Amino acid sequence: MKYEYLTNEDLDIAVESYIAALKAEGLCPKTERVPVFEAAGRITASAVYAHICAPHYNASAMDGIAVMANKTFGATETTPVRLKPADFIQVDTGDPMPEGTDCVVMIEDVVRDADDVLLYGAAVPWQHVRQVGEDVCAGDMILPSYTKIAPAALGAMLAGGVLEVLVVKPPVVGIIPTGDEIVSPCTDPKPGDIIEFNSTIFSGILKEWGAVPKTYPIVKDIKEDIISTMKKAVEECDAVIINAGSSAGRDDYSSLAISTVGKMLYHGIAIKPGKPAILGYAGEKPILGVPGYPVSGIIVLEQIMRPVIEVMTGANLHMKDEIEAVLGRVMTSPLKYREFVRVRIGINENGDFVATPLNRGAGVVTSFVKADGIIDVPQDCEGYEAGDKVKVILLRPLDELKNTLTIIGSHDPLIDEITDLLKIENKDSVVSSSHVGSMGAIMALKRGESQMGAIHLLDEETGEYNTKYVNKHFPNGGVILEKGVKRIQGLMIAKGNPKNIKDFSDITRDDISYVNRQKGSGTRILCDFLIKKNEMNSSDIYGYDREEFTHTSVAAQIASGTADAGLGIYSAAMTYDLDFIPICNEEYDFLIDESAYGGEKVKNFLKILHSDELKDRLTRLGGYETWDLHM
Amino acid sequence: MKYEYLTNEDLDIAVESYIAALKAEGLCPKTERVPVFEAAGRITASAVYAHICAPHYNASAMDGIAVMANKTFGATETTPVRLKPADFIQVDTGDPMPEGTDCVVMIEDVVRDADDVLLYGAAVPWQHVRQVGEDVCAGDMILPSYTKIAPAALGAMLAGGVLEVLVVKPPVVGIIPTGDEIVSPCTDPKPGDIIEFNSTIFSGILKEWGAVPKTYPIVKDIKEDIISTMKKAVEECDAVIINAGSSAGRDDYSSLAISTVGKMLYHGIAIKPGKPAILGYAGEKPILGVPGYPVSGIIVLEQIMRPVIEVMTGANLHMKDEIEAVLGRVMTSPLKYREFVRVRIGINENGDFVATPLNRGAGVVTSFVKADGIIDVPQDCEGYEAGDKVKVILLRPLDELKNTLTIIGSHDPLIDEITDLLKIENKDSVVSSSHVGSMGAIMALKRGESQMGAIHLLDEETGEYNTKYVNKHFPNGGVILEKGVKRIQGLMIAKGNPKNIKDFSDITRDDISYVNRQKGSGTRILCDFLIKKNEMNSSDIYGYDREEFTHTSVAAQIASGTADAGLGIYSAAMTYDLDFIPICNEEYDFLIDESAYGGEKVKNFLKILHSDELKDRLTRLGGYETWDLHM
Repeated sequence: MKYEYLTNEDLDIAVESYIAALKAEGLCPKTERVPVFEAAGRITASAVYAHICAPHYNASAMDGIAVMANKTFGATETTPVRLKPADFIQVDTGDPMPEGTDCVVMIEDVVRDADDVLLYGAAVPWQHVRQVGEDVCAGDMILPSYTKIAPAALGAMLAGGVLEVLVVKPPVVGIIPTGDEIVSPCTDPKPGDIIEFNSTIFSGILKEWGAVPKTYPIVKDIKEDIISTMKKAVEECDAVIINAGSSAGRDDYSSLAISTVGKMLYHGIAIKPGKPAILGYAGEKPILGVPGYPVSGIIVLEQIMRPVIEVMTGANLHMKDEIEAVLGRVMTSPLKYREFVRVRIGINENGDFVATPLNRGAGVVTSFVKADGIIDVPQDCEGYEAGDKVKVILLRPLDELKNTLTIIGSHDPLIDEITDLLKIENKDSVVSSSHVGSMGAIMALKRGESQMGAIHLLDEETGEYNTKYVNKHFPNGGVILEKGVKRIQGLMIAKGNPKNIKDFSDITRDDISYVNRQKGSGTRILCDFLIKKNEMNSSDIYGYDREEFTHTSVAAQIASGTADAGLGIYSAAMTYDLDFIPICNEEYDFLIDESAYGGEKVKNFLKILHSDELKDRLTRLGGYETWDLHM
Repeated sequence: MKYEYLTNEDLDIAVESYIAALKAEGLCPKTERVPVFEAAGRITASAVYAHICAPHYNASAMDGIAVMANKTFGATETTPVRLKPADFIQVDTGDPMPEGTDCVVMIEDVVRDADDVLLYGAAVPWQHVRQVGEDVCAGDMILPSYTKIAPAALGAMLAGGVLEVLVVKPPVVGIIPTGDEIVSPCTDPKPGDIIEFNSTIFSGILKEWGAVPKTYPIVKDIKEDIISTMKKAVEECDAVIINAGSSAGRDDYSSLAISTVGKMLYHGIAIKPGKPAILGYAGEKPILGVPGYPVSGIIVLEQIMRPVIEVMTGANLHMKDEIEAVLGRVMTSPLKYREFVRVRIGINENGDFVATPLNRGAGVVTSFVKADGIIDVPQDCEGYEAGDKVKVILLRPLDELKNTLTIIGSHDPLIDEITDLLKIENKDSVVSSSHVGSMGAIMALKRGESQMGAIHLLDEETGEYNTKYVNKHFPNGGVILEKGVKRIQGLMIAKGNPKNIKDFSDITRDDISYVNRQKGSGTRILCDFLIKKNEMNSSDIYGYDREEFTHTSVAAQIASGTADAGLGIYSAAMTYDLDFIPICNEEYDFLIDESAYGGEKVKNFLKILHSDELKDRLTRLGGYETWDLHM
């Protein structure tokens, strides 16, 4: 049975009417009383008033003597007033004001004369007294309803004699993972198994929102089991999320279970990803059907579950900073859907934000790990041109973005290792690196999207690396080429070389399946150079059009047995325990924007690049040579 | 024994050398392994690499048939290729690619012919296949060290076969409250007792920073007890905070205890508040002596403990948004100290931020509850003029500030009640109200600091309220006067009227102590009007210069027995169970900036002002009359 979408509803309309329906059923925050000592970060469920004044007594604000001010009246520099011991009492700061006194004379202004004191100036009533209620008065409202309790507010409450506070009770949200192919992350997965990590992601998100997730064991695609688990979850929880298998080509009992236990309001929302979402409820309890792909799931939670949790918790969860950014490249979007596109954000030399869309696959959860923000593309928008200004909802603090070193270009694990070493040295450092190949590095620098990028571009004529490309693409300068490392490129082949591959020219053999790198990558250019040099024909290579984006993904295809050979670096072959036929020792260098070159971020990067720590790590990875002039 | 400050060190220098000393002693994050399921929000302690590829198998990305692409080569619209049942296998989306196949032909493109299929187009190897490692490849770095683990990263780790992760272990921070006068909030405080709420504030702050607070029982000012508790805490915790009594006029064994158990690096930092801070350590364990006033304590934690916790947790805790704001009024600052001033922030009609300093008393913890931001005034700065541009470190999200309705003016509990009702109706609403009196309302509106303010200004000649003042101060308009409520003003006196006060003129009696309101407040103007009308003399009133800022604080002084009478509203007298001699029924109205009048925030406020819910609350408070035209 395929998914049958009943609706293709506009997101805003769907959420608004969903919330309205839930409120009509009685959805509202539950409450509980907690001791103030444990109330940090909780949300008040009603206004909090002070029971007592703080301070609760009049206290001396100085070291000195406490007196009645009217007994000092008339004192001047020439005619002091004499006070007998019965008329004054010595006090320290913080002491309660003694009965029958209303001000403090500072010890510096008190002249002793045997047991008496002489004052050469009149006091004003209540001078140097910290009066009752200076901080808060009994009856004053300390916090209104639905306010997050900050640490200082705990102090204000305790000072005001409030020991317990009525707060919102965190809603319990049940999560039901379903699907025949779903297995726990703790099992060793077989082909066809899908590792169930959505419930862990959803739990993490729900906790951030102040809810308590409760994950049920995985339920197979058995109608009765799904319905009975749904019934149980609705009984035990305040809201339920049912996580379906992928939307198409699979049995789907989510909608059936929701309809059986409660009501289904929408099935199918005009968003991408996330279309198969189901909005339902049983009484006042929301039930959300969430699609199986993790990115779809996160978007559906963010867009639909978050406003529901806001109603249930009284918390304001939706205020996120929005910035305007320049789009780095063309981005198309379907007219049928409102699309949420994850982007990386860089800052160009003019200080403008530049947004670069990430992999839009609904199964690519790492796109959310890498994302700095999200572009919300309206339904009636076909997309944007490169250079268009777009609004980006930030997923990271603005300050962090401003501190980010943006590296776009060829990929090598050493960039990740440097990122890690930078973090160890300075926890504030943030590196954002995108793998778009060597030519991508040049283009990104030209567009001002990045501060630096790695390149390893072979000049077919001279056999030299990088210099000629830089001179050609930056005839007026503006960039600086910094030597990186030498690394061994070669042909990665299965362990033990079962197909008996001798050299690069063997890849045209009929029994060899090749896996290539994407156009514009230095390794692809090397591949084409080798084809030309060996007078081969790319159409003779089975899999020439099969493109991967990193060395490790090429290695992964060979290790999984779906390809016999592919070009890549030595360290990737080692990681996947592959055999390796070395071809050349290439120069992997860093091209750096001139305006960023002298900056702290690039300086720190280069310091690590030339450090012993990195040298050690590269030795462990294998296949690298560093430039001695830097060592 | 008075505090002897050994040092008056510059804050930045002190913190830098403190951190350096701690690191030299070996301070660094501790680590622990936790299951990924429980790792949300934790900080990675080393780089996390994928163990397996995700997806871990090649999967069909479509419903269709899986084939070897080379068997389809040559197929065209006119010359189809026929595949025998042995040459194709039917697959659904997500199914693993069968052995001996390398692409999927969509079901729509498959023509059945008995058991065979006909294809009218050639397939490309790996078309419609979701390949191994599309999301993440084995060996790829998923997260670098010292990175906060977001929910999506949990999914990426589990997908990459990572079940456990090395994270930073939250440091345990001991908190030792000390002082003879300190009592638990659970006890009924006697005069001279100081309620111990600092440890609760500090615990809340430490939890926000990812540390685990451990509060010890209150220790009296007994040298041996303080030293032995310090020893115990240093043994049991990773860091220790000792909270002293107030700095002057008290026994102080904090520095002694620190010197006995470890070393003292600084005692006295040139900041205000917070000067008495002590920076010490025992081995690699930081020991911080924190002054007793809560505001000083919070500042010392923020400025000194936070960077220490950053070293201990690897978390980035210090990135806060900073804005530029116009200072609303003159603000002086001592040259001897770097001062941290808490401010409210409003937005004027030009969209500029306007900062208004809050009560700077070190004991006024509510100033932190009310604060929107902090101005960091350098040591060599004497302060700023009204209108100067200042940098403000934000304590609230910028978006929240932009949504805030800023009310500056006369105080009445009804403003707090409306704030609460607005929150109940719409959890996003934020009201910031400052109590500066009726004339303060007019000044704040003139300076563009507020959107509205309450006034109750009696014209002595006509006996009319508000209109004449508005016309005088806004001859060219720009504001709208909206009727608020009528409320009863009168003389608040002790319960049972022990001093037999009959009317306002009695307050000049020798045996009567009066408590007044601040200059510029409507109630002060009423007081002066009554003095004039009754032909009294203000110099005959004992306590005429004793100024309080709210009705409740006047009532609090009378209730505490330190004053016999004060002008105020009926509801304040009721809250404090005082007797009340009614004097007039005044008109408490709202003056609203014209440009804000039509806006959502003001509209919502006025809607609540005229609501039945507020009417009910005012009835409970007592002494109010609402304007029927609005009801």
